Amino acid sequence: MLNKNVLNFIGCDCGYDEANIVLFGAPFDSTASFRPGARFGSQAVRMESFGLETYSLYQDRDLSEVGVFDSGDLELPMGDTELSLDLIDKRCGQILKEGKRPFMIGGEHLVTLGSIRAVREKYSDLRIIHLDAHADLRNDYLGVRYSHACVMRRCWELLGDGHIFQFGIRSGERKEFEWIREGHVEIHPFCLDGIKEAVRRLSGYSIYLTLDLDILDPSVFPGTGTPEAGGTGFMELLEVLIEICKNSTIVACDVVELSPHYDASGISVAVAGKLIRELLIAM
Amino acid sequence: MLNKNVLNFIGCDCGYDEANIVLFGAPFDSTASFRPGARFGSQAVRMESFGLETYSLYQDRDLSEVGVFDSGDLELPMGDTELSLDLIDKRCGQILKEGKRPFMIGGEHLVTLGSIRAVREKYSDLRIIHLDAHADLRNDYLGVRYSHACVMRRCWELLGDGHIFQFGIRSGERKEFEWIREGHVEIHPFCLDGIKEAVRRLSGYSIYLTLDLDILDPSVFPGTGTPEAGGTGFMELLEVLIEICKNSTIVACDVVELSPHYDASGISVAVAGKLIRELLIAM
Amino acid sequence: MLNKNVLNFIGCDCGYDEANIVLFGAPFDSTASFRPGARFGSQAVRMESFGLETYSLYQDRDLSEVGVFDSGDLELPMGDTELSLDLIDKRCGQILKEGKRPFMIGGEHLVTLGSIRAVREKYSDLRIIHLDAHADLRNDYLGVRYSHACVMRRCWELLGDGHIFQFGIRSGERKEFEWIREGHVEIHPFCLDGIKEAVRRLSGYSIYLTLDLDILDPSVFPGTGTPEAGGTGFMELLEVLIEICKNSTIVACDVVELSPHYDASGISVAVAGKLIRELLIAM
Amino acid sequence: MLNKNVLNFIGCDCGYDEANIVLFGAPFDSTASFRPGARFGSQAVRMESFGLETYSLYQDRDLSEVGVFDSGDLELPMGDTELSLDLIDKRCGQILKEGKRPFMIGGEHLVTLGSIRAVREKYSDLRIIHLDAHADLRNDYLGVRYSHACVMRRCWELLGDGHIFQFGIRSGERKEFEWIREGHVEIHPFCLDGIKEAVRRLSGYSIYLTLDLDILDPSVFPGTGTPEAGGTGFMELLEVLIEICKNSTIVACDVVELSPHYDASGISVAVAGKLIRELLIAM
Amino acid sequence: MLNKNVLNFIGCDCGYDEANIVLFGAPFDSTASFRPGARFGSQAVRMESFGLETYSLYQDRDLSEVGVFDSGDLELPMGDTELSLDLIDKRCGQILKEGKRPFMIGGEHLVTLGSIRAVREKYSDLRIIHLDAHADLRNDYLGVRYSHACVMRRCWELLGDGHIFQFGIRSGERKEFEWIREGHVEIHPFCLDGIKEAVRRLSGYSIYLTLDLDILDPSVFPGTGTPEAGGTGFMELLEVLIEICKNSTIVACDVVELSPHYDASGISVAVAGKLIRELLIAM
Amino acid sequence: MLNKNVLNFIGCDCGYDEANIVLFGAPFDSTASFRPGARFGSQAVRMESFGLETYSLYQDRDLSEVGVFDSGDLELPMGDTELSLDLIDKRCGQILKEGKRPFMIGGEHLVTLGSIRAVREKYSDLRIIHLDAHADLRNDYLGVRYSHACVMRRCWELLGDGHIFQFGIRSGERKEFEWIREGHVEIHPFCLDGIKEAVRRLSGYSIYLTLDLDILDPSVFPGTGTPEAGGTGFMELLEVLIEICKNSTIVACDVVELSPHYDASGISVAVAGKLIRELLIAM
Repeated sequence: MLNKNVLNFIGCDCGYDEANIVLFGAPFDSTASFRPGARFGSQAVRMESFGLETYSLYQDRDLSEVGVFDSGDLELPMGDTELSLDLIDKRCGQILKEGKRPFMIGGEHLVTLGSIRAVREKYSDLRIIHLDAHADLRNDYLGVRYSHACVMRRCWELLGDGHIFQFGIRSGERKEFEWIREGHVEIHPFCLDGIKEAVRRLSGYSIYLTLDLDILDPSVFPGTGTPEAGGTGFMELLEVLIEICKNSTIVACDVVELSPHYDASGISVAVAGKLIRELLIAM
Repeated sequence: MLNKNVLNFIGCDCGYDEANIVLFGAPFDSTASFRPGARFGSQAVRMESFGLETYSLYQDRDLSEVGVFDSGDLELPMGDTELSLDLIDKRCGQILKEGKRPFMIGGEHLVTLGSIRAVREKYSDLRIIHLDAHADLRNDYLGVRYSHACVMRRCWELLGDGHIFQFGIRSGERKEFEWIREGHVEIHPFCLDGIKEAVRRLSGYSIYLTLDLDILDPSVFPGTGTPEAGGTGFMELLEVLIEICKNSTIVACDVVELSPHYDASGISVAVAGKLIRELLIAM
Repeated sequence: MLNKNVLNFIGCDCGYDEANIVLFGAPFDSTASFRPGARFGSQAVRMESFGLETYSLYQDRDLSEVGVFDSGDLELPMGDTELSLDLIDKRCGQILKEGKRPFMIGGEHLVTLGSIRAVREKYSDLRIIHLDAHADLRNDYLGVRYSHACVMRRCWELLGDGHIFQFGIRSGERKEFEWIREGHVEIHPFCLDGIKEAVRRLSGYSIYLTLDLDILDPSVFPGTGTPEAGGTGFMELLEVLIEICKNSTIVACDVVELSPHYDASGISVAVAGKLIRELLIAM
Repeated sequence: MLNKNVLNFIGCDCGYDEANIVLFGAPFDSTASFRPGARFGSQAVRMESFGLETYSLYQDRDLSEVGVFDSGDLELPMGDTELSLDLIDKRCGQILKEGKRPFMIGGEHLVTLGSIRAVREKYSDLRIIHLDAHADLRNDYLGVRYSHACVMRRCWELLGDGHIFQFGIRSGERKEFEWIREGHVEIHPFCLDGIKEAVRRLSGYSIYLTLDLDILDPSVFPGTGTPEAGGTGFMELLEVLIEICKNSTIVACDVVELSPHYDASGISVAVAGKLIRELLIAM
Repeated sequence: MLNKNVLNFIGCDCGYDEANIVLFGAPFDSTASFRPGARFGSQAVRMESFGLETYSLYQDRDLSEVGVFDSGDLELPMGDTELSLDLIDKRCGQILKEGKRPFMIGGEHLVTLGSIRAVREKYSDLRIIHLDAHADLRNDYLGVRYSHACVMRRCWELLGDGHIFQFGIRSGERKEFEWIREGHVEIHPFCLDGIKEAVRRLSGYSIYLTLDLDILDPSVFPGTGTPEAGGTGFMELLEVLIEICKNSTIVACDVVELSPHYDASGISVAVAGKLIRELLIAM
Repeated sequence: MLNKNVLNFIGCDCGYDEANIVLFGAPFDSTASFRPGARFGSQAVRMESFGLETYSLYQDRDLSEVGVFDSGDLELPMGDTELSLDLIDKRCGQILKEGKRPFMIGGEHLVTLGSIRAVREKYSDLRIIHLDAHADLRNDYLGVRYSHACVMRRCWELLGDGHIFQFGIRSGERKEFEWIREGHVEIHPFCLDGIKEAVRRLSGYSIYLTLDLDILDPSVFPGTGTPEAGGTGFMELLEVLIEICKNSTIVACDVVELSPHYDASGISVAVAGKLIRELLIAM
C-alpha cells in the first residue's frame, strides 16, 4: 500500500511522541506594508530544504538525531488578523502543553505575537531576544495596531519593560528610538555586538528567540519584504545563533520574513533553510 | 521655478474643475487568499502608461480630449479592511458629490465594495455589470466575510436580487453556483455571450462596471493573483467594453486585480493600461 | 496530537483503499536535450493546485467525489535512466495490480516509457493516444536511444505498428516524418482535428493517454523545455480531453513536460493543474 | 587541430560562395524610447535556434537545403546613430553586390533605414511591405528625427509616396494617421486583411519585407520593447509570411524588435527563431 | 478638491523656495555599451523609497529636516546625446542660479558631463571626486567620444590635469591606465583607501561628487549595466560618503548607473535609495 | 568576403598553433540532483565576457598576450554519462598531446572526471587542488556512482590516497567526513586557510586545479545548482587563485557549476568570466 505525499523539512522525520521540537508554518502576511509574500516562506523552505544535507559540519551533528516533528502549515485567514493570531496561539499552546518546544516559520513578523501569547502563559519569566533590521516598535502604523511594524510594541505590552533585547536594528522612525531611550527595551543597534554578554546576563531565564531574517544584509538574503542595506553576514549570524542556543534556555523560537518570490535565484530560501537546520540542531 | 514630480496616467492632465472623470488608485490586497501583490497595480499602470499613445485608433479619439483628472493613490492601511473600505467610500463619495465620475484602479477585488457603498448612496437604481473569471459570491472564506472571494455577495447584500449581472465566470465552489441558481444574480458563464442583450435590457439604469482583469485568459494577462485558464481574448473584451460604454450609463467604474510583479515581461500592465485608456475614452 | 505535513494535489484526499485513481510524480529530466527542469513539475503542480477550486464548472462535478489518492513523487536517480524507468514501471505495476488506475505527472516525456512497460503487461490490446508538439520518434538522439526525443519510438518497439495515434505534432526532423509515412504510427499534424473520429475507432480498446503539455501554444504554456510556436489553445484542448475521457476506456494516463522555473508568472502551472483536475474528473 | 567556436543560426552552415542568403545581426537600440534591449535580439535568436529543428513540417523543406550563410553581428557604436546606420548600409551593400540577399536581424526598427539605403541603390523599383503594431511615421520624436518611431517616415523620404504598404498597425499618434490619410503610404490597420490582394498588386516589383515582431500579440511575443495588445496570432502571421514569400520577389528582409531580456520564459526568442527559419525556407 | 498624483523621493516634500537641494532625474542610457536600462533608475528609486524610513539612525537626523525639493525627471530624447546633455546642463544651471544645489539621479554615467558643464560655470575651482568600478577615461569607444566609457575623459578636457580624484577603480583597458600614469588624474584603485586624506587636501575647494553605484560589489548591487566583481561593501561606502560630505564643500552631486530591471529582487533600488537618503542628510 | 560568426571568450583570439592554453566547454548536467542548468554555463560565460575588459588591473597584464584558443563546446549527449565522459576525455587528450594545456568550462562537476582521465595519462605525478563547497566524496548517490556528488571519490579511485587537496568544503553527509578522516584526502574545511602552505608542499608536482564556483558565497555567486551559504568572498578567492597559479605547475584546469538561468541579474556569469580571465592570465 502506498503512502500519502508527506512534505517535511529535511530530516524532521521522527514521530510526534518522540519529538522534542515541533515545527509549524504560519503563512500570514496581511499587514505587510511594503511588499507582501512572506506567506510563501514556510512551504518554500520545506521544499528547498532538500538542497541541504541533514548533517552540519559546523556542529558535527545530524538533524536526524535531534527529534523534530514537522506539523505543517496552519491555515490562516488572510485579512483577519485576530483570528490568525488566535490560531497561532492555539497551535503553540498545544505544543507547549505536550512538553515540546514550538518552532514557528513565518510568515510576516506579526505572527510572533500569537506565539508569545501562548509561551508567556507557560513561562512567566520569559525574555525575548529579537534579531532584526527594524525596531518594530511603533504604536500603530497608519492607524493599525496589529501590524508587523508594531509587533514588538505589542509584545512589550504583554511583558513590560526590560524583557526585550534587540540586536542588529538599523531602521525605524525617530519616535521609536526616542521611546527606546525611555528604557522600555534594550537595544544594540546596527550589528550583533554585545550579544554574548547579554546572553550571559539572561542565563537562567526562559528565552524566546525571534529571528527576522532581514537582519542579514540584502546581498545575503534578498528575498524579504523590506530589504535594508547594511546588515550582518551569514557566518556572523550563524555563530551568534549557535552561541545563543548553547548558552541559554530557548523555550520557543521563530524565523520570519522570508518572502521567496522576491528572490528567483533561491539563495534566500537556501540561507533560511540552513539557519533553521542549524538552530534545530543547536537547540 | 520648477514643479514637483507629477506621475499621472498618460493623457490625464486636465484640471480638477474641468474633469469629467476622476481616477484614483486603491492599493489594497490584504485579503488576497492565494497570491498577493495587487497593491502594486495602480502605480505600475500609471508608470507604464507612457508606453502607450494617448490616441485610440479603435475609437479615433484622443485621451486628452476626454477630461480626466488623476488624483493618485489612497494610502490604505494593510491589515485593516474596514478602515480601508471606509477610505475608498469617502474618496468615491467626494468625487460623486462634485458631479464627476469615479474611476478606481485596484488593488484586489474587495475594493469594489468601498466604491459601491458610495455610489449606491447617489444612485438608488444602481446595477452592477461584473466581468470576472471568479464568481466572488462566497458567504465567507475561511471565516472571513470581507474577502475578495466574497465581494459580490457583500454587494448583493446592499443591492438585493436581480441587480448584479456576471459575465465570463469560470471558477467557484459548488455552493456559489447553487446559490446563483436560486436567482440572486444573473450569470453568463465562461464567456461574454449575452452581454449586448443584457446591456439593452439595462438601458436607463445607472451602471457600475467592475472589471476583474482575470477574466482575460492568462496568456493575455498573466500578472494576476489567481490566473484561471480558459478566459477571453483581448480584442473580444475590448469590443465588449466599448459596446457597454456606448450603450449604457456608466456612473462609476473600477479595474482590479492587476498584480504586476507576477509578470516581469510587463505585458499585463500594458494590457491593463490600454483597457483603461479605451474605457476612459469610451465613457 | 498533530499530523505530519501532507501535500496532496487539491481535492485528492480519499483513502488509498477507496481510491479509483492513484496520482504519482516522476521527477526526472536527465535526457532533456534543450532546457531541463521538468523534474520540478509534479511538486509545483501540487503546490499551486490550491489556487484552483475542486469544483469544475465545465463538468459540474467536484474532484472530491472522484476518489483520487496522491502517493507523492518517486525518488528517481538523475543520470541513471534505466534505474529510473524501472522505478516508474514498478510503481505503475503496483497501482494496476491493486485494481486502480495510475496517473503520472512528469518529468520529461521519457517517463512515459516506464509507465507503458507496466501498463502493456496488464492490457495486451493497449493503444496510445499521444498529444504533443513533437513526434518523439527518433531512433536515437546524439547516440542516446533512451531520450525524450525517442520515447514514442521505444513505445512503438513494445507495441508495434498501428498502436500509436499522434495529434498536434508540428516539429521533428525530416527522417521522423519519412518513418511515419511508412505507416508505423497514425499522425494528425498541427492540430487536434480528427481526434473524435479516432476515438470512435478506438472504442473498445484499452487506451493510454499521454499528454505532453507543449502541445499547447507557448503563449498559453510557456513553462516547458522546448516551446514550439503554433500550438493549440486551452479551451480547444480541454474540450478534446473531456471528449476522449468520456468516449474511451483510459486505463492509465500521464501529463508531462511542465518545467515551472521557465515561467515565473505561474500560469503554466495553473494551466497544468486545471487540466489535471479536469482529466481526473472526466476519467 | 581544433576549430574556433562558431555560433550560427541553426542550419545556416553553407559556405559563403554557395550562399543565396546572408544573415547578419544589427544589435542597435540607442533610440528606443520606452524599453531598450533589442540589441540582444540577434545573438539570443542564434543561441536558442538549437531548440528548433532545421526541418519545417509546414513547408516540408529543410533549412540546410536553402543555402544560408550567417555572417554574425555588426559591431555598432551605441549612441552614434549615423555611424551605425552607415555600417549597416555598407554590410548590406556588400552582400547585394555579391549577388546575395541580405537578411538582417535587429536590433530596434531604425536599423531598417540603413538597410533600405543600400537596397534602393540596387533596386530602383523597391516597395516596402511593413508588418508592425506601430506606424513609425512621426516626423520626429522629442526632436529626434533618426528614431525607431520615425523610421518609416525616413524611408518614405527616400522612396516617395505609394511605395510603403503597412499591415497590422494599431498604435500611433493622431498626427501620423492624419498624414497617412494624405495618401503617402497605404495602411491596413489592426490586422493582416488585404495582404494577399496587395501582394498580387505588387507582383513584378522588388520587395523589401520588414517584420517588426511586435505585430504579434504580446501573449505570443512578450519580449519586445513596446508591447501593444490586440495583435495577430502566430499561425496567422506564419501563413501570411509564406504567402508573401511565395508570391513576390523579396530582395531583402529584416526581422526586428526582439528584446529577449523582457521574456525570461524564452518563448519570444523561440517564436522569432521559428519565423526566421520559415522565412529563410520560403524566400 | 483633490490633488494631482505627486511622486517624490520619500521625505523630499519641502516647497521649492525653502529647498536647499533640488533633486532631478536624468533618464538617459543611449550610449550604454553592454546592458542598457539605467534610464529606469530615477523613477524606480523614487517609487521604492517608500520602503525606507525618512529617519537615519546612522546620522540621527530626519530627511524631512533637510529641505529637499524633487523636481522629477527630465524628458531626454534617446538617441540624441548632445540634446540630452544640453537639457541636463540647463536644468542644473537653473538650480545653481537660484542658489540651490543640484542632486542628479541617473541614468548612465555620461549624464555627469551635462551637469559638470553647468557646475564649472559657477565654480571655477571645481574638483571631482569620482567613485566607480571603471575608469571611464577612454578617448573614444568604437569611435564614439560621448559615451559613458569616456565621460571622465570629457570632464578632464573641461577641467584639466589634477582636478579629478578616482576611487575604487578596478576595470579599464590598458591604455586608460597608461594615460592615468601620465599624471592627468589621481587614481586610488580597487578600494576606498586614501579617500580621507584626499578629502583633507581638497578642503576649501568646491567639490562635485559623482557616485557610480557599480563601485559596490555586485553582490550588494546587482542592478547595474556592467557589474564588476570585487567591489566595496555597503557600510564601507556609506561611511566614506558621510565622511566626504562632512569634511568638504559639495556643490553638486550625482548618483548613476542603477539599472533596476536587472535586479528583480529590488535590493539594488533599496541600496541606491538608502545611499541617496544618507547623502541628502549628510550634505 | 564575410566570415562566419565566431563567438570566443573575450581576448581568446590567437591561432591554434600559437596557443598555450585551449579552452573548451563541457555542457553536461544530467546527474545534477537538485537544480540542473549547468549545461548553459560555458556559452553564457563566452557571451557575457564582452562586459569584461581583456586587461587585468590586478595582474597588470592583458589576456590578448597570453595565447588562448577557444575551441567551443563539446556536443554531449544528455542522459548518457559514459559517452559524455568519453568525449571529454578525448578532447582533453588531444589538447595535451599537442603540447597545450586544457581549460574546461562546465557543466556540472562530474565533467572533471573525464578530464582527469586524460590528464593522469600524461602526468603520473598528478595532484588535484579542489576548491568547492561540497566534498563530492559519496560512493554513490541514490545508487548512481557517476554523479556530481561522487566525482572526487571517482577521481580518488584513479589517483589513490594523498593526491587530492580540498578547500572551502562546508557541506556533505556524515559518512563523507568519516571517510575523509580515514586519511584518503586532505581537507581544509569552511575556508581557504592553509592553501598557501599546501601549495608550497605541492611544489614540483603536476597540478590539476578544479574550481567549483559554489565555493563562493551565494551572495557573490547565486547562479549555481546547489547554493550553500557561508562561502568565500570574491577577492579572497581571486587572490588565492593567482597565488596558486604563480607558485605551482598547473597542467590543466576546470571551472564548473555555473548555472546562469538561476541568476537573472547576470552577476554570476560576470564573476565566472572575471575569474576565468584572471586564471588564464595567471596560468
